[in-house]
Amino acid sequence: MIREIGIGLAGFGTVGAGVFLNLEKNRALLRERIGRDLIVRKIAVKDPSKKRPVSLPPALLAANWRELLDDPAVQVVVELMGGIEEPRELILEAIRRGKIVVTGNKALLAEHGAEIFQLATEKRVPVFYEAAVAGGIPIIKAVREAFVANHFLRVRGIINGTSNYILTRMAESGLDFASALAEAQAAGYAEADPTLDVNGWDAGHKAIILASLAYGFWVPSKDVLVEGIESITPGDIRFAAQLGYTIKLLGFIDACLDGSVEVSVQPSLVPDENILASVRGVFNAIAVRGDVVGDALFYGRGAGQDPTASSVISDLADAAVALEAPRDSFGFIPHALYGKLRPADEVVSPFYLRLGVDDKPGVLARIAGVLGEAGIGISSVIQPETNEGELAALVLMIHDAPRGRVLSALQKIRALDCVHGDPALYRVEAAA
Amino acid sequence: MIREIGIGLAGFGTVGAGVFLNLEKNRALLRERIGRDLIVRKIAVKDPSKKRPVSLPPALLAANWRELLDDPAVQVVVELMGGIEEPRELILEAIRRGKIVVTGNKALLAEHGAEIFQLATEKRVPVFYEAAVAGGIPIIKAVREAFVANHFLRVRGIINGTSNYILTRMAESGLDFASALAEAQAAGYAEADPTLDVNGWDAGHKAIILASLAYGFWVPSKDVLVEGIESITPGDIRFAAQLGYTIKLLGFIDACLDGSVEVSVQPSLVPDENILASVRGVFNAIAVRGDVVGDALFYGRGAGQDPTASSVISDLADAAVALEAPRDSFGFIPHALYGKLRPADEVVSPFYLRLGVDDKPGVLARIAGVLGEAGIGISSVIQPETNEGELAALVLMIHDAPRGRVLSALQKIRALDCVHGDPALYRVEAAA
Repeated sequence: MIREIGIGLAGFGTVGAGVFLNLEKNRALLRERIGRDLIVRKIAVKDPSKKRPVSLPPALLAANWRELLDDPAVQVVVELMGGIEEPRELILEAIRRGKIVVTGNKALLAEHGAEIFQLATEKRVPVFYEAAVAGGIPIIKAVREAFVANHFLRVRGIINGTSNYILTRMAESGLDFASALAEAQAAGYAEADPTLDVNGWDAGHKAIILASLAYGFWVPSKDVLVEGIESITPGDIRFAAQLGYTIKLLGFIDACLDGSVEVSVQPSLVPDENILASVRGVFNAIAVRGDVVGDALFYGRGAGQDPTASSVISDLADAAVALEAPRDSFGFIPHALYGKLRPADEVVSPFYLRLGVDDKPGVLARIAGVLGEAGIGISSVIQPETNEGELAALVLMIHDAPRGRVLSALQKIRALDCVHGDPALYRVEAAA
Repeated sequence: MIREIGIGLAGFGTVGAGVFLNLEKNRALLRERIGRDLIVRKIAVKDPSKKRPVSLPPALLAANWRELLDDPAVQVVVELMGGIEEPRELILEAIRRGKIVVTGNKALLAEHGAEIFQLATEKRVPVFYEAAVAGGIPIIKAVREAFVANHFLRVRGIINGTSNYILTRMAESGLDFASALAEAQAAGYAEADPTLDVNGWDAGHKAIILASLAYGFWVPSKDVLVEGIESITPGDIRFAAQLGYTIKLLGFIDACLDGSVEVSVQPSLVPDENILASVRGVFNAIAVRGDVVGDALFYGRGAGQDPTASSVISDLADAAVALEAPRDSFGFIPHALYGKLRPADEVVSPFYLRLGVDDKPGVLARIAGVLGEAGIGISSVIQPETNEGELAALVLMIHDAPRGRVLSALQKIRALDCVHGDPALYRVEAAA
């Protein structure tokens, strides 16, 4: 007799339905591989009468999510409801009752991860969340298990597919941000409200989760520098290309030499020879540098019904083993080797600075003067050709400097009467 | 009291010493993360008096590898000896005695995997082998655990760093094979005897292991088509670049529509927009397509002391958990959904065919005639400029055709009096 694992599914949106469908589709394969049968016993949804692309089997419908907790035949609770407060309540109560939790809720973990994993550790109940970061890419398993031998020196991630699609279309077709966003929406790659995708916060939540795994502590989201892609211009993308770079929205999770950790999301110039520059369209990629393994990179679909369901089902397979294993691995181990977030202004990197300027002699001298006074070095300057209607542009590549110092200098530069419009200041990434 | 896991290390070469050193270096981190202490209790080597870059602690020296099996304090045996017969004996005997096995021996698994995993299943003893494929890249864990929900549609791998380094140098600097190999040897990226790296068999062993995980059965190595890179010319690399391709040595593991599986290693033209074309130098990469997750790719260092040690230590962490878990996962699950190897001659793909020809009218017509008679379509023809000393070349891109049919036609083409020298026939890979 093959053992059955009882699953309670909270939420039957895109991902929830994908989990249900793929468990059905590949049931025979899963049985052979994991030696157990993953059975959805109950499904809780907010509005059972809602019209859905995948019809919800009436026999499985629960009155509400609390019913999943009360059912002794539900051993694993899968939280795919969306939102924060109800999922938080569900997960905390599931842990209290000893039910293993699987969730894909990145915003919840980024905001309440500390609370959830403290309770999970206390109650010895595993919480799995592969689907919370980068959809189908098994980056949680990689960081937690495959690279267990490593101190993480840094992590870099293209972890929002919508913004990467928009930047790819801007680079490949010269579209502006608004047109590329409209195209992404038409193609189904951006939601009607794309705010969290384009303002960087979807990536921000994922960066916080990756940082927690790599460095063993939860970074308060209010302390994380998060910038979006809304103000990137076709000109910036073109100028970057002339210099041999592709603009990407990158998550940075970095161990600094003083033992502090940087966590941020910023538009960045990636050298074309860096493999992250080759990541096009809706794909995600995460580059990890460990002190033992060196450089590694993971690439795949960061969203979508099936890729995300693939990750949820792999968590279910791990949950099935965990049900019978000694309960001393909880999906997050606070090892506390670091524990201090580095203020964004103290982070040192090279920068790309594009200014709108008067096209006349002496302008560069004045700008270079401000930078020089601040002790900020310039590695190169170009005055690229601009299209009709664009301001004359001056692009400066700035040597390694603390971000706060560059921002102060930029404030002085903006006050110069020869400088106009909104400048662009982007971090520059290394070649490898 | 933190639990101790006793390890017996067979072999203290590059990788064995790397495991020992990194267990020491990151001991505190590993304790915090896995909640156990991984202790090397005994080390067996063939010649204890041999001069080694890392000195072998005399207190740990075993008389021979059998002593690791006899020591009740050794719970996990790590086989990193090299060779086939002794490792096979060691591993089979360890399984019989209920000791968990970790090995990085790709040749052994490719040749004797069926026997080893049959015994492991029977005795319920896990065997881990992350280090056997692609060094530091956790591809075994990914295929076995992260993508457990997926039928694998195909796997493509750059799984030999030495040959990828040689091909990269040939492409970037126009070197010929012999000079690039000499450079790889000088840089420490190729061994004094590079035979298995350049003739494709190192990659062949890894392809057999990946196929076993993806499709649940062991392919006999004698039935696997394996080609090397020795006869790739600077001309071929240049012509391919003109057409928008990069030549890579690829492992192919493909589910065919009739339920059979293709396993092969072949030099291949990869379109430059395919991310595998961006994998340079000694790096490895493996692209996986699953029916649920879609396309994913893993990239990293495929060899070297530290990257390989990172994988061995992650196996040790898994072994530490497995010691206390129910014994029903053995590191390889024969699910037997497929089970039939497709003969290489029946595999259908597009091809690149480069011929040395007389530079005169009528030559193309005669060659196209032979192909046409065989029902083989030509998608494009170029007559590239050749350097002094090179034969006039004719390059034909051939539509999807069974390899066997193309080889028969090629035999007839070689018999034409207008065709000279050795032709090149390489598979052409799709854009994504």
